[in-house]
Amino acid sequence: MSNNRTDRSSPSNDLSGLGEAGIIEWIRLNGPTREDPRLLQGIGDDCAVLKYTDTDDLLVTIDTMVEGTHFTEQTLPPDAMGWKALATNISDVAAMGGTPKTAFLSLGLSRKTSKEFIEAFLSGLNDLAQKSDVVLAGGDTIESRIGCVITLTLIGECPHGRAVYRHGARLQDDVWVTGYPGNSAGGLALLKEKGLSRSHVATSLVTAHQRPNPRLDLGKSLARSNLVHAMIDLSDGISTDLWHVCRQSRVGATIEAATIPISEDLKGLGDRVGTSPLVWALHGGEDYELLFTASKSHRNEIEMLATSVSGIPIHRIGKIVEEAGVSLVTEEGMIELAPGGYSHFSGG
Amino acid sequence: MSNNRTDRSSPSNDLSGLGEAGIIEWIRLNGPTREDPRLLQGIGDDCAVLKYTDTDDLLVTIDTMVEGTHFTEQTLPPDAMGWKALATNISDVAAMGGTPKTAFLSLGLSRKTSKEFIEAFLSGLNDLAQKSDVVLAGGDTIESRIGCVITLTLIGECPHGRAVYRHGARLQDDVWVTGYPGNSAGGLALLKEKGLSRSHVATSLVTAHQRPNPRLDLGKSLARSNLVHAMIDLSDGISTDLWHVCRQSRVGATIEAATIPISEDLKGLGDRVGTSPLVWALHGGEDYELLFTASKSHRNEIEMLATSVSGIPIHRIGKIVEEAGVSLVTEEGMIELAPGGYSHFSGG
Repeated sequence: MSNNRTDRSSPSNDLSGLGEAGIIEWIRLNGPTREDPRLLQGIGDDCAVLKYTDTDDLLVTIDTMVEGTHFTEQTLPPDAMGWKALATNISDVAAMGGTPKTAFLSLGLSRKTSKEFIEAFLSGLNDLAQKSDVVLAGGDTIESRIGCVITLTLIGECPHGRAVYRHGARLQDDVWVTGYPGNSAGGLALLKEKGLSRSHVATSLVTAHQRPNPRLDLGKSLARSNLVHAMIDLSDGISTDLWHVCRQSRVGATIEAATIPISEDLKGLGDRVGTSPLVWALHGGEDYELLFTASKSHRNEIEMLATSVSGIPIHRIGKIVEEAGVSLVTEEGMIELAPGGYSHFSGG
Repeated sequence: MSNNRTDRSSPSNDLSGLGEAGIIEWIRLNGPTREDPRLLQGIGDDCAVLKYTDTDDLLVTIDTMVEGTHFTEQTLPPDAMGWKALATNISDVAAMGGTPKTAFLSLGLSRKTSKEFIEAFLSGLNDLAQKSDVVLAGGDTIESRIGCVITLTLIGECPHGRAVYRHGARLQDDVWVTGYPGNSAGGLALLKEKGLSRSHVATSLVTAHQRPNPRLDLGKSLARSNLVHAMIDLSDGISTDLWHVCRQSRVGATIEAATIPISEDLKGLGDRVGTSPLVWALHGGEDYELLFTASKSHRNEIEMLATSVSGIPIHRIGKIVEEAGVSLVTEEGMIELAPGGYSHFSGG
């Protein structure tokens, strides 16, 4: 989205003044609600959580990808669109520590869309569905005259009472991230600059953007371990997603720039195009890694668990503190980190 | 959609050759599937049906409304948009004989959308949610640069094994419809012709289009009665929706033009604009009435049930026959009725 200042400071009554979190909060307060003993978690986490049996809770998440906002022909071929539509939702289930089960697809396409497009889209969707043991159980196919619109709803499960929420972070907790945040934003930068994408560093970054791997096994193991206090997936960037965890846990966080993991490929790209890879890692979004907090007394257990389950590297990037907000410690000192990830409507 | 012949007869490889039913069938055959004992009904009915407990099944449906295809500023104000986004989904649950419970909303809006728009949208959504005892449990808010896009997923319930499917119609069954099909299409015609909408007949037709009342109580009672063999909601028009019931039940149907209920307001509008109201009733769509089949030996019970539960008029319009397809008996003779409701992609 545009970083144009005039966009941001618009005094009008439109949505840019609210930001995505503001709109969601408004809907949470003003939308249809009622007392429902089955609704363990409504609006405000990666998934809604519903009690359905004595042994299992239901997790439900919905995500939409719109042409022009989330992707263009240049950044996302149809097979990657199918993969990513499911990946963003699986990642939400992973962030609750759950197991994805059943998907529902709403596909809005132009009448000029080719059959090859749908074949490729389904092929990408199938790849991740098979890998994740997800079945497509329903959907809706509509004509969209205004571009391609994909909504996927995913239902998952977790043992009753064992979902991990955003709101559980405790003072002095370590803040951990999986993998290498920023790779997806780096890949997007490459895809937008066709010349760059031909270079040898392209593959890992482009794959991170086009076919992200939700951290399903790791999320589930972390939840089952009972060691994790709060968890979220990195869909909007560390700055925004950690801010959500802090706000909902009524705490703050301090993270250290030097400890944020940056992949070698992202460093290389940053050097070449003159962008600090830290900006991509903090504010890029769409990484679908996990960010979680856990007691510092369980560092060894957490590290051993991550190694044994998945081999996915995990890194401690900071700690939970009392003062609200997210602070970043750099060589130049401490700076307040505003939610700067990809926030719809706010020009972030 | 356009009725332009060159659109329809395009020899290209695009979606217009497949039609919505064709695309859905293709996805059903080629999308991610696996053996899942919990999935009692996947793609192909108004809702997917999942077995979750010994006593209750879960019903899941998803529907998307896209600006320019499903509505324009002229035909649907924001409060009606909120109402209708939920109504289309509640109607799917009604058609299975279920009870709607939990909604998930994905709202794609331009950054220029006003706060008043969201307030009005939520107000309309609230009206129907409260009336239907539905809670909004989650969602996603995104920027859409290409127009307003609303997807709603609804989870409902019905007693285990008691959902009514499209595929149960039996030979010699009566075909019934609730209410007055065609009113919504008449309302849409009025809304598109601003001059007409000022007339005194506007209200009931415009309301039918903008704030349809899903037949929830009646659908549930019909299902509980065990008298109904097949049921569908009239979202695409009698011709298309009855065709679905016939195809999935491996039967055909004969309906009589003279018995199709036409409201007085629709008759009046038809006279004034020179359109046969039968066309609206057969092919109009978006009525969200119910069409169902039941044994002719239960006519009295069905009529008494409808009167006692809801007061909504119901009418017999024909019967189930052996020969495939849907035939319409008119004063001029019998004609084959092609699916002519609103089929996305096919120009219908």
